Amino acid sequence: GDPEFRITGFAALKDAGPKDLAFLGNELYYSDYMATAAGAVMTVAKAPVAREGLIVIDVDNPSVAFSRVIEALQQKRAFEAEVHPTAFVHPSAQVVGAMIRANAVVEEGVVVGKGTEVGPGVVLERGVQVGEDCLFYANSVVRERCELGDRVVLQPGAVVGSEGYGYELVDGCHRPIPQVGIAVLEDDVEIGANSSVDRARFGKTVIGEGSKIDNLAQIGHNVELGKHCLVVAQVGIAGSSKLGDYVTIAAQTGVAGHLQLADNVIVAARAGVTKSLTKPGVYWGMPAIPLRDEKRRLVHSLRLPDMNSELRTLRKQVAALEKKLSD
Amino acid sequence: GDPEFRITGFAALKDAGPKDLAFLGNELYYSDYMATAAGAVMTVAKAPVAREGLIVIDVDNPSVAFSRVIEALQQKRAFEAEVHPTAFVHPSAQVVGAMIRANAVVEEGVVVGKGTEVGPGVVLERGVQVGEDCLFYANSVVRERCELGDRVVLQPGAVVGSEGYGYELVDGCHRPIPQVGIAVLEDDVEIGANSSVDRARFGKTVIGEGSKIDNLAQIGHNVELGKHCLVVAQVGIAGSSKLGDYVTIAAQTGVAGHLQLADNVIVAARAGVTKSLTKPGVYWGMPAIPLRDEKRRLVHSLRLPDMNSELRTLRKQVAALEKKLSD
Amino acid sequence: GDPEFRITGFAALKDAGPKDLAFLGNELYYSDYMATAAGAVMTVAKAPVAREGLIVIDVDNPSVAFSRVIEALQQKRAFEAEVHPTAFVHPSAQVVGAMIRANAVVEEGVVVGKGTEVGPGVVLERGVQVGEDCLFYANSVVRERCELGDRVVLQPGAVVGSEGYGYELVDGCHRPIPQVGIAVLEDDVEIGANSSVDRARFGKTVIGEGSKIDNLAQIGHNVELGKHCLVVAQVGIAGSSKLGDYVTIAAQTGVAGHLQLADNVIVAARAGVTKSLTKPGVYWGMPAIPLRDEKRRLVHSLRLPDMNSELRTLRKQVAALEKKLSD
Repeated sequence: GDPEFRITGFAALKDAGPKDLAFLGNELYYSDYMATAAGAVMTVAKAPVAREGLIVIDVDNPSVAFSRVIEALQQKRAFEAEVHPTAFVHPSAQVVGAMIRANAVVEEGVVVGKGTEVGPGVVLERGVQVGEDCLFYANSVVRERCELGDRVVLQPGAVVGSEGYGYELVDGCHRPIPQVGIAVLEDDVEIGANSSVDRARFGKTVIGEGSKIDNLAQIGHNVELGKHCLVVAQVGIAGSSKLGDYVTIAAQTGVAGHLQLADNVIVAARAGVTKSLTKPGVYWGMPAIPLRDEKRRLVHSLRLPDMNSELRTLRKQVAALEKKLSD
Repeated sequence: GDPEFRITGFAALKDAGPKDLAFLGNELYYSDYMATAAGAVMTVAKAPVAREGLIVIDVDNPSVAFSRVIEALQQKRAFEAEVHPTAFVHPSAQVVGAMIRANAVVEEGVVVGKGTEVGPGVVLERGVQVGEDCLFYANSVVRERCELGDRVVLQPGAVVGSEGYGYELVDGCHRPIPQVGIAVLEDDVEIGANSSVDRARFGKTVIGEGSKIDNLAQIGHNVELGKHCLVVAQVGIAGSSKLGDYVTIAAQTGVAGHLQLADNVIVAARAGVTKSLTKPGVYWGMPAIPLRDEKRRLVHSLRLPDMNSELRTLRKQVAALEKKLSD
Repeated sequence: GDPEFRITGFAALKDAGPKDLAFLGNELYYSDYMATAAGAVMTVAKAPVAREGLIVIDVDNPSVAFSRVIEALQQKRAFEAEVHPTAFVHPSAQVVGAMIRANAVVEEGVVVGKGTEVGPGVVLERGVQVGEDCLFYANSVVRERCELGDRVVLQPGAVVGSEGYGYELVDGCHRPIPQVGIAVLEDDVEIGANSSVDRARFGKTVIGEGSKIDNLAQIGHNVELGKHCLVVAQVGIAGSSKLGDYVTIAAQTGVAGHLQLADNVIVAARAGVTKSLTKPGVYWGMPAIPLRDEKRRLVHSLRLPDMNSELRTLRKQVAALEKKLSD
């Protein structure tokens, strides 16, 4: 294309203007490509037809390439290693090289590593340990003694270290079982908006290195996630279940308590895992079974009214045959 | 009834005292009507039998009429266009005629329209734009650059503009895809307690004018809701799905990503929408199909054990017939 | 065992060291017992084989006994009846003998009983009434006029008294139905992290004495829970449903509106309650039916592909028989 062309922004194909860079990474959006007003588009070599005046940039993975360009060009967030005058930082807290923003609360004995931003209204309770370069968005909460590694991200309203749900019935009342453990988020963990990670009854609830949890998910007490797991929105994982590495749990799925999920297990959306899944693979349904089996079950489930009619017809035919033979 | 009678309060039929107004709008509560101690009851003309000493007010729609009376009589919330001394408002923010309450945080470049109440502990991040007469309840959060129209209501803990959930696997690690877009809430939108609306990857996540989202719902990145949609509690709508106008999604339902839902589509509770729904109508089930079909499917699903017995009986009968015929 | 032995901590069997007390309460963890490095283990008399050097303490209920020891030995949280200088307490609020922590907000007319801890960033709106010895964790919110008894616990981000979800369509717009009632939490109620309890349209939403609600649950307007109910994570209970005493609703289940659930009803996980359940018992499935029926239904549901094959085979056999007989 024109070597003098300069982009000034990024946009989706359908929103882009003549100074914007867009990308085409999914054939669903091919008609948007044909109609785009973008000045330049990143896509896979030869995929789309050329369009007059549109600069097409060949890349292997348009989505990844586009992300790299955005990262290179976007403004860095302002980071200032200071404590805002409206924040409360307990004198015993160790905060050096971190940014504590308006109305945040950093309690007794907390340690915050350098490069970490503690957003407005965030609360770090007594004895919390935080590594470097973390980013805690507004009003997220970490309860007492929990331990967070480096580059951990908490979206707004995320809660780490809430009480595990455990009671024992004594004289007709549900008496809380003490939850004296903690929650540990290893390096590069991210927790979504308004999600909760319960502290352990004793010992640790662990979210392994690089695991990413989406919004409104619930991680029960003593759960352990391996490294690089993906837990999508509104998933619930009940107490004491252990997930291996690279496990993916899609949206709105539930995992019962005290189960083991092997490395590389994938559970599709809205499933219910009721037994341990000891082999890698894709699972679906309630109860969760191998994806192919659930798809077959689902197809037949939709045929149920037909199957019922066929049964009725067969019963009549067989009765007629029996009558004929007994005559 | 007695022209001198004056009500002093409102209550449900079963809780009302002799000075209270109540209403009967649903025949489920007919026995409460017969037993009520209320001084006056609004209901549809002639519906209930008269009761000695009870004033019955005939109206077309008891529920609506009752709401109008409450609105006319309830105390207005105290609105004072001032910034509470414990709030932090960045010098560059434009706040005129708005009420900024205790410990709220209004960051750099934020614009808040007149008549808007920013509740205690609310955080409006850098560059957020807010219209007039909005009401943000305690500890709700709007992240950077998001745009909110007039009369927008955020219940406590609601989060607008959290990061969309998108990663690409690079060298075995889930690397976040930059989410540089925003979320837009048009006029008269309401977001429930602890719900989250993700910002777009780029461009906008849009909640259309007059749409109402209940508690604990999750709206993914680049989702677009049309005007006057209803999204009930604990619903999840995955990334890039587009809903038309007057779409209703009932509680705990999930909508997969990249789908289109036509105007006036209604999806019943606990359903899973896995394909675009291009025609208005009521849908249900997992996968979501027309309501009538799902109801039939469900009835037959409950007959499964019987169907299985019938099958076994038939197999025996047919085997017997075959034997007879081959003899 | 050794009368001189002193424990210095608690841990799970697999994490325990030689100075720790652990317990074995579930045979799932028997192999952990065999390998533990703990100095002492509580368990049921005679259950496990003895191990050299390991002190085994016979108890009736290892889990309960272990909790009692932890409670006896754990450090009490620091309680100081004072208002933190960064908190805002309205002059008209009555706060005597309570602890109001950093950046909390206690509004006009609020009453807080003695021994209650109001955590960092917590907001108690106008006219809220709180009993004694309550514990409100960081950033939880109670909206105006709601009433909380003694020993109520709110986990971080819990919301009490949010607006009920009710609209009426007027001229094409969803007009909010005024929600002028309150929410009442009786003594010993606990609400989990990021859960929401809506206020009543009028009258009261009630969470009965001793009931415990887990994280991310949604309690609709005018719902009434009896005493000592358990509502597990991500459950939703729709408006105006009434639960008796000792009702348990397991994780991710939904209860439709305007239903009655009898005392001692238990609903298993991921179920959908669509009708009133008037008899105690265990229910499951969507729609929720007696547990045993749902288990049978589920087993047969998994047989659906086989049933379909059997049907096809039968149709062929019957057609062959009919042909034979008509020849």
